[in-house]
Amino acid sequence: MNLLIFSVLSLLVSTSYANIIQSDYCVGDLSLPSSPAGYSCKNPAKVTADDFVFSGLRVAGNIAKPFKSGASTAFAPQFPGLNGMGISIARADLEVGGVVPIHTHRVSELIIVVEGTIISGFIDTNNTAYYKTLTKGDIMIFPPTLLHFQVNVGSTPVLAYASFASENPGIQIVDTALFQSSLPSELIEKVALLDDAQIKKLKKMFGGTN
Amino acid sequence: MNLLIFSVLSLLVSTSYANIIQSDYCVGDLSLPSSPAGYSCKNPAKVTADDFVFSGLRVAGNIAKPFKSGASTAFAPQFPGLNGMGISIARADLEVGGVVPIHTHRVSELIIVVEGTIISGFIDTNNTAYYKTLTKGDIMIFPPTLLHFQVNVGSTPVLAYASFASENPGIQIVDTALFQSSLPSELIEKVALLDDAQIKKLKKMFGGTN
Amino acid sequence: MNLLIFSVLSLLVSTSYANIIQSDYCVGDLSLPSSPAGYSCKNPAKVTADDFVFSGLRVAGNIAKPFKSGASTAFAPQFPGLNGMGISIARADLEVGGVVPIHTHRVSELIIVVEGTIISGFIDTNNTAYYKTLTKGDIMIFPPTLLHFQVNVGSTPVLAYASFASENPGIQIVDTALFQSSLPSELIEKVALLDDAQIKKLKKMFGGTN
Amino acid sequence: MNLLIFSVLSLLVSTSYANIIQSDYCVGDLSLPSSPAGYSCKNPAKVTADDFVFSGLRVAGNIAKPFKSGASTAFAPQFPGLNGMGISIARADLEVGGVVPIHTHRVSELIIVVEGTIISGFIDTNNTAYYKTLTKGDIMIFPPTLLHFQVNVGSTPVLAYASFASENPGIQIVDTALFQSSLPSELIEKVALLDDAQIKKLKKMFGGTN
Amino acid sequence: MNLLIFSVLSLLVSTSYANIIQSDYCVGDLSLPSSPAGYSCKNPAKVTADDFVFSGLRVAGNIAKPFKSGASTAFAPQFPGLNGMGISIARADLEVGGVVPIHTHRVSELIIVVEGTIISGFIDTNNTAYYKTLTKGDIMIFPPTLLHFQVNVGSTPVLAYASFASENPGIQIVDTALFQSSLPSELIEKVALLDDAQIKKLKKMFGGTN
Amino acid sequence: MNLLIFSVLSLLVSTSYANIIQSDYCVGDLSLPSSPAGYSCKNPAKVTADDFVFSGLRVAGNIAKPFKSGASTAFAPQFPGLNGMGISIARADLEVGGVVPIHTHRVSELIIVVEGTIISGFIDTNNTAYYKTLTKGDIMIFPPTLLHFQVNVGSTPVLAYASFASENPGIQIVDTALFQSSLPSELIEKVALLDDAQIKKLKKMFGGTN
Repeated sequence: MNLLIFSVLSLLVSTSYANIIQSDYCVGDLSLPSSPAGYSCKNPAKVTADDFVFSGLRVAGNIAKPFKSGASTAFAPQFPGLNGMGISIARADLEVGGVVPIHTHRVSELIIVVEGTIISGFIDTNNTAYYKTLTKGDIMIFPPTLLHFQVNVGSTPVLAYASFASENPGIQIVDTALFQSSLPSELIEKVALLDDAQIKKLKKMFGGTN
Repeated sequence: MNLLIFSVLSLLVSTSYANIIQSDYCVGDLSLPSSPAGYSCKNPAKVTADDFVFSGLRVAGNIAKPFKSGASTAFAPQFPGLNGMGISIARADLEVGGVVPIHTHRVSELIIVVEGTIISGFIDTNNTAYYKTLTKGDIMIFPPTLLHFQVNVGSTPVLAYASFASENPGIQIVDTALFQSSLPSELIEKVALLDDAQIKKLKKMFGGTN
Repeated sequence: MNLLIFSVLSLLVSTSYANIIQSDYCVGDLSLPSSPAGYSCKNPAKVTADDFVFSGLRVAGNIAKPFKSGASTAFAPQFPGLNGMGISIARADLEVGGVVPIHTHRVSELIIVVEGTIISGFIDTNNTAYYKTLTKGDIMIFPPTLLHFQVNVGSTPVLAYASFASENPGIQIVDTALFQSSLPSELIEKVALLDDAQIKKLKKMFGGTN
Repeated sequence: MNLLIFSVLSLLVSTSYANIIQSDYCVGDLSLPSSPAGYSCKNPAKVTADDFVFSGLRVAGNIAKPFKSGASTAFAPQFPGLNGMGISIARADLEVGGVVPIHTHRVSELIIVVEGTIISGFIDTNNTAYYKTLTKGDIMIFPPTLLHFQVNVGSTPVLAYASFASENPGIQIVDTALFQSSLPSELIEKVALLDDAQIKKLKKMFGGTN
Repeated sequence: MNLLIFSVLSLLVSTSYANIIQSDYCVGDLSLPSSPAGYSCKNPAKVTADDFVFSGLRVAGNIAKPFKSGASTAFAPQFPGLNGMGISIARADLEVGGVVPIHTHRVSELIIVVEGTIISGFIDTNNTAYYKTLTKGDIMIFPPTLLHFQVNVGSTPVLAYASFASENPGIQIVDTALFQSSLPSELIEKVALLDDAQIKKLKKMFGGTN
Repeated sequence: MNLLIFSVLSLLVSTSYANIIQSDYCVGDLSLPSSPAGYSCKNPAKVTADDFVFSGLRVAGNIAKPFKSGASTAFAPQFPGLNGMGISIARADLEVGGVVPIHTHRVSELIIVVEGTIISGFIDTNNTAYYKTLTKGDIMIFPPTLLHFQVNVGSTPVLAYASFASENPGIQIVDTALFQSSLPSELIEKVALLDDAQIKKLKKMFGGTN
């Protein structure tokens, strides 16, 4: 019975995958296991032009209250056509007074301002802060993995697009990492030297326990 | 005298480079030789926030007549802060009826439409063409090195941004490669099977000799 | 029942793959899904010396009539032992008067002439053409993704071997991409500025529709 | 005169570098400019076994008071033999009650405990915290770029070695990035949602201005 | 029936993998096929802190008699949390008079001496040998793929840790490759110019046939 | 004076390099320092088609007596046009009874037999030997860094071409590494378990001292 099931599956799979040799792209199939290289490839026979197009950035992402900004990502999980492509993009909308909170990614980010005015900056490992005021059409590069942020300093909402040198750049926001995770307060006090009152206040804001 | 000059130079260079250890970034210094990894690094002591910002995409690039479109690139040569960052961006403006002619890059490209409507597509190595109509906010991915193009099919100009998975993606346009280079017409006839009349016409348009 | 099937399959698979830890190579198993890194690995217990040897290049590939040349490829799909190896090879046979039509690959190519005489060249992104006459024993390097070609300029057939810096370098031939795909003629006119008559003639030759 | 100087320099340099072809290693020469690939190579004729050995980790690094721990790094700047090698190591000494404060690197880190007991952990981009108590001989892997930390929870000092998947992994400590840099307090309040009192207190501790 | 099994499996798999989008890490699942990028990812829903910790190096590996040393490896097969991480570590114990026999890896190795005194060295492709005496706290770098070794020259056992720039660096020991494999003696004589008596003696020691 | 010299040099260099932006290729300039990425780029203004062509493999390399074979390499040092290209090639000529002695490279190698018959094989890290008889037109892949060899088993000379997945793959021959370097005999005895008589004999053959 085992041998039968296995043979049947091999046959099914082989019928699907072996006939079309495709290495120009590898549209992600999220129903199969991944590897460090990304998702397994969707059956090339079922790939159409729609796999290479994504319309999710036509609208703003949900606004997160503490920050008064929203990020809508077109990373490989949302847009599987990016699988293996080494690039992705996100849309950032900042309300008046809104910020993109200080955070990191695994790779470089290149931001372009479409509407509005922001202060945009990063901090390097020598603890030097680099920040500038950017307006429509300006771009800024953030080196990989360094802490960076944006602040809307204008009187109108900001729209910006951020491109990343990976289809899965990751986003690690310091506030949610510390105050939304279950990392115990005593540990946070020790490793970030924050006061207990500060930690409690932010855990309450972000929903962290412990 | 030789030893003196050499020592002097080493001293000058060492004073400049050895004191500040910086590997978070490597802003390109275009006055020094490059390597396959990119430009040599600008002296970190002279790096400021301005090195990470670029305003050249605030305005459209020059419109190229045959195509009625212009591309303004923020690649490492124009924006040396991108050196080693693995990402870059270009601005594409298409007049009504304009096109981005069929071309390739070394790496993937991710395009986002800011204004207007285009047909955007690529051809894979199985000679399958994938193309879609894109409108404001839509994005499309072009796998590395495959021929692709855009056509303005709307009644208004198009503005789009294209991000690339390299700070030096290169742009090879088929028409200028064949008809602006000095590749002899007899060779083009043989390797592209184009008629001599067609070749002459396009060489005249693009300025190619031979 | 679900749990039973799944457990059975896991058992089958685990019996096959987990016992032998093999990372020196990963011979491709074309019956399983791929990923951006290539094919899944064939069960190491079933790998023999034959998996690392390929005899398909003993004979010339089929001659394609318009070009009077044939390419026989030993890429990962034909020779799964190359999976993950970062290298591959093809054999090119050019009849008298034959050409390898202008085309690109994702990676560099290094060609060596075994018999005959060719003009071999490429065009860079500055639209400069580099070409030389090569004879037996000569080699030429084509940088990644740039358009290149060969022409048999001797009175005897040409045999050459081309190595590639990838096991799946891809081959995109301009003529088949434009004229064998289903890309509509109106689009080709616009993005390549070719005359309709030229397009129709070549579509007829290569079998493209639209 | 220009031509003379340039020729002289070329001659000097060529005498130094061209004679010995060495690509097995590239010991860093910190007096010359770098590139994204690392330092220029030291003249191979002057390389000895000493270039591949480093004794700096025989002793503990200086203890940083707020954290009661010291990190002594053997990265490419300290140990130029690591240039281009893709690996480096640091020594961490934690006094009783000491911590390695929460921080990131560009690449993965693998820590091994030689003496003592620590709680060691990281937070992923889903805001999940993973932490364990480690004792002598235990190792833990931290994925690239994710926030991580260690706390000495024993009654004796801790000695640990941390290896990194790069010769220049970088270390970005949240506290020094925010409170030692010149990033203005108003910006920190906005992008980290920290209270002004907390910011002032930590800026005072770490020496940040503004 | 086929369709049923396949759908069932897809459902099982999709329930497992699609819900949690995880690209910070990819803990190896050794029961599934691998690819050149490593193992398939374990279901993220089942990952815990234990997946990132390994205690196997608390004790010495088995001592191999001819060499009087033991290597205990924490590579991806033993420690699947290293999958995709680009780093690994091994523990080497050398008895008095013991050696780590001459061998290679695919990537660089960085060794640190914890106890004892060794002579440690490598040979480059110019056939230059670099070796030094190392004692507690000293580190040495071995460039990728070059032959290297260690010899305990002290009067006490040696403990050292070796880090590698890959989670699967491989270990190829010259003696076992030549004398434990089934490579026929006549071939070894020809390609290594060793005497038949020497080959027979070592084959007997290591168990090689032919 | 310093400032004058430095400015003059900058001017010279900038005149040379900054005007032509070239990233399609980076022909090596062996008179300048290298980096882990390879050679510095030759001034693009001085690059011609000749930089991409190499004729050195038209003739066989010198025959090395012990092995009765010769290898002629077209690596980056001999053919600087390969700088940054990720590929190279060598020509191997084996006299009757000749061998390519057992050796390694940093990357994979793909060999093709042009004339003659060989036994060709490699050993993996599980100490399994894979070898086959190859004849004209056959190809074999050797995974990176694994020991491999060829033996001429025919009655005629062998000509083969070997391609490598790097422009600087390195060649480490076990015999010359052990017996041509200055590695002391006592160390070789310990780390390779070879008899002193065997070592002395081979040191005499290869010119090693100590």
